[in-house]
Amino acid sequence: MRMVDLIEKKRDGYELTKEEIQFMIEGFTSGDIPDYQMSAFSMAVFFKGMTKEERVHLTQAMVESGDQIDLSGIEGIKVDKHSTGGVGDTTTLVLAPLVASVGVPVAKMSGRGLGHTGGTIDKLESVEGFHVEITNDEFTHLVNTNKVAVIGQSANLTPADKKLYALRDVTATVDSIPLIASSIMSKKIAAGADTIVLDVKTGSGAFMKSLDDAKDLAQTMVDIGNGVGRKTKAIISDMSQPLGFAVGNALEVKEAIDTLKGEGPEDLHELCLTLGSHMVVLSGKAENDSQAREMLEDSMKNGKALEAFKTFLGAQGGDASVVDEPAKLPTASYQISVPAKTSGFVAEITAEEIGIAAMMLGAGRVTKDSVIDLAVGVVLNKKVGDKVQEGEALATIHSNQENVDEVMEKINAAYRLTGEKVDKPTLIYTEIH
Amino acid sequence: MRMVDLIEKKRDGYELTKEEIQFMIEGFTSGDIPDYQMSAFSMAVFFKGMTKEERVHLTQAMVESGDQIDLSGIEGIKVDKHSTGGVGDTTTLVLAPLVASVGVPVAKMSGRGLGHTGGTIDKLESVEGFHVEITNDEFTHLVNTNKVAVIGQSANLTPADKKLYALRDVTATVDSIPLIASSIMSKKIAAGADTIVLDVKTGSGAFMKSLDDAKDLAQTMVDIGNGVGRKTKAIISDMSQPLGFAVGNALEVKEAIDTLKGEGPEDLHELCLTLGSHMVVLSGKAENDSQAREMLEDSMKNGKALEAFKTFLGAQGGDASVVDEPAKLPTASYQISVPAKTSGFVAEITAEEIGIAAMMLGAGRVTKDSVIDLAVGVVLNKKVGDKVQEGEALATIHSNQENVDEVMEKINAAYRLTGEKVDKPTLIYTEIH
Repeated sequence: MRMVDLIEKKRDGYELTKEEIQFMIEGFTSGDIPDYQMSAFSMAVFFKGMTKEERVHLTQAMVESGDQIDLSGIEGIKVDKHSTGGVGDTTTLVLAPLVASVGVPVAKMSGRGLGHTGGTIDKLESVEGFHVEITNDEFTHLVNTNKVAVIGQSANLTPADKKLYALRDVTATVDSIPLIASSIMSKKIAAGADTIVLDVKTGSGAFMKSLDDAKDLAQTMVDIGNGVGRKTKAIISDMSQPLGFAVGNALEVKEAIDTLKGEGPEDLHELCLTLGSHMVVLSGKAENDSQAREMLEDSMKNGKALEAFKTFLGAQGGDASVVDEPAKLPTASYQISVPAKTSGFVAEITAEEIGIAAMMLGAGRVTKDSVIDLAVGVVLNKKVGDKVQEGEALATIHSNQENVDEVMEKINAAYRLTGEKVDKPTLIYTEIH
Repeated sequence: MRMVDLIEKKRDGYELTKEEIQFMIEGFTSGDIPDYQMSAFSMAVFFKGMTKEERVHLTQAMVESGDQIDLSGIEGIKVDKHSTGGVGDTTTLVLAPLVASVGVPVAKMSGRGLGHTGGTIDKLESVEGFHVEITNDEFTHLVNTNKVAVIGQSANLTPADKKLYALRDVTATVDSIPLIASSIMSKKIAAGADTIVLDVKTGSGAFMKSLDDAKDLAQTMVDIGNGVGRKTKAIISDMSQPLGFAVGNALEVKEAIDTLKGEGPEDLHELCLTLGSHMVVLSGKAENDSQAREMLEDSMKNGKALEAFKTFLGAQGGDASVVDEPAKLPTASYQISVPAKTSGFVAEITAEEIGIAAMMLGAGRVTKDSVIDLAVGVVLNKKVGDKVQEGEALATIHSNQENVDEVMEKINAAYRLTGEKVDKPTLIYTEIH
């Protein structure tokens, strides 16, 4: 088998076999197939796509390129959740303890990563003492005991994907739905969950700007998941404005606490209940969405969700008292309002710009070596549809530096006000099975 | 400027500027732009093509990536000719002395290369003593004196093209007309001629199997040539069977001698007159094709063409007496007929298969280090349209090995006979300006 023939086959629109895809991914991972062939192949995929079968084979080959996490020591059906980017997405912080509180095992492997804010682990480290350096045995034990634990991404997961993603990034072949889908799904599958719930974002702040593209990506991922025997569902949710109010690490932990009490921002609350319901149903703990939703709402009301969060934090060395006393979380020196320049209704908040504003304050990583300031970030006071008076605060900047002129400008630019009344945007567009 | 942005621009169908293309080719030649980006770009070009302007800029950038031959010391308008591959193509051997004999300066830089037979230099080395190791000054002097000389390809011509071609070869991006055209034209332009005549082959033995593709390639090359200020014309000629009778080095030299006397195979004779006429007109030595053709026919008849060949060979150390005594050329030990298995009319001769047969005998190079046997090859006795009796020789094998069973089989397989009368194929399909 020669790679050049496989490139030509794809270029000319033919379907590659399982063996051919395995040959390619094994060779690429080992270095036998050079980058210049893989990048030409990726560009051919950009133009010619991949069949359902090819996508499954590609994903499976990437899963097999590295370690696969064995969660068989954990009782019950393990459910994982993945959101495709976005700004101020606090869902993971809420969902992990929330679904654990109704008995769904959440065995979460998480990373730090680059972005507007830190990853899930960074956010959780706002809680003093919390750490993810636990052994696999401790991890299994914790999930069996508390139904939820988070472990750092230390294993050699999907090296083929890491290598391919780095190559796609510099060869203009990122924007290919089969390649995006197999990249995401290979990581989720290697991480060992039995079933997967996907939250595909669409809108100005999302990678998939159009609803059609988001649907296409969601369907592709669902087909891959089901194709490799992991039951998978997806929803398409709105990212035409940041989710919730908080964009920042400790700020999002605080928002998660509110949401676990049933007192979170409307959109975050609703999205967590929707995603959570799917997770509960897939794990077999409820028969249908409405039953699952009721269980989760009860758990918020009766304090079990919050209790699960405390137990989870404490079990991994964290000071669980922050849940009752959020003031103990890292706090920025300055809280500075961003006043509206005119009156009107909020028509749009460019999520991307708010994310960049948070990053300018130090909430995220620009490079791998950046040090995150866990206290800083942006809290939105107004969201799309809200009425605003001139001078009223659109948002609040939490900063450890006094001069925030540029950040303020960025936030002001992100808000578009209009004279006419504006409807709240749709939060959840559709479900994909 | 970032290469990834240029790949994306091409991928999305936008036109690259001159500066962008220069940046890309300079970076690629120096190694600053890695192969994996250039291969992704080439695949994007495969799908999206290039505009007329982009093709000119690409060709020019490749010309400027290395040395450019200065032919300004040679008097008159220098004409170069290029044929796009094919089997048994003896036109260069004929055309160089033929057009020189009517006063057109031919300053030919030539190579050896891989293929079914050797390159022009290998063929000429069938003549004892002939060599191309001459200085640039000698070369200029010889062309000014005799109107024709051949020099070896020693200069650093179009390194960008060499590097890009090697990359395209292993990334399934060879079959792109803009890339093929700029590759050929960059070499011709760097070699310094003022005007260029192209012979684009079409048919089973050619790279361009279909007439439409051949026309497209020819038009693209003509536009590039004219676009960089080198007057360029092209013809599309048939390669559905080998050109002439001989496929082999010394065998082709002998056939060239016959053709210079006006006694060559009908198709080779006609093609040389057509291409030669265009060269004479482009050089300004005749006003139109019919005048030019008359000059060339006269030159064949009155012995001037043959005389020019003798002078040319002698001036570069060759034993010119071979022209009058072709038996002095290297001769193979065995001449073995390939008898027809049935009677009928020749409907097809797969040129590629005949070429491979010649290569099996040792006429061509498989790798750079192969040693060519100048004596061996195949001479066709029957061509498309000819009537054949069972047992009559279809072709004659010239071999230095006695056992030629496989070669004979190959040649037999190349011939397709039919019961019905067959017309001779069209030789020249069209001209492209």
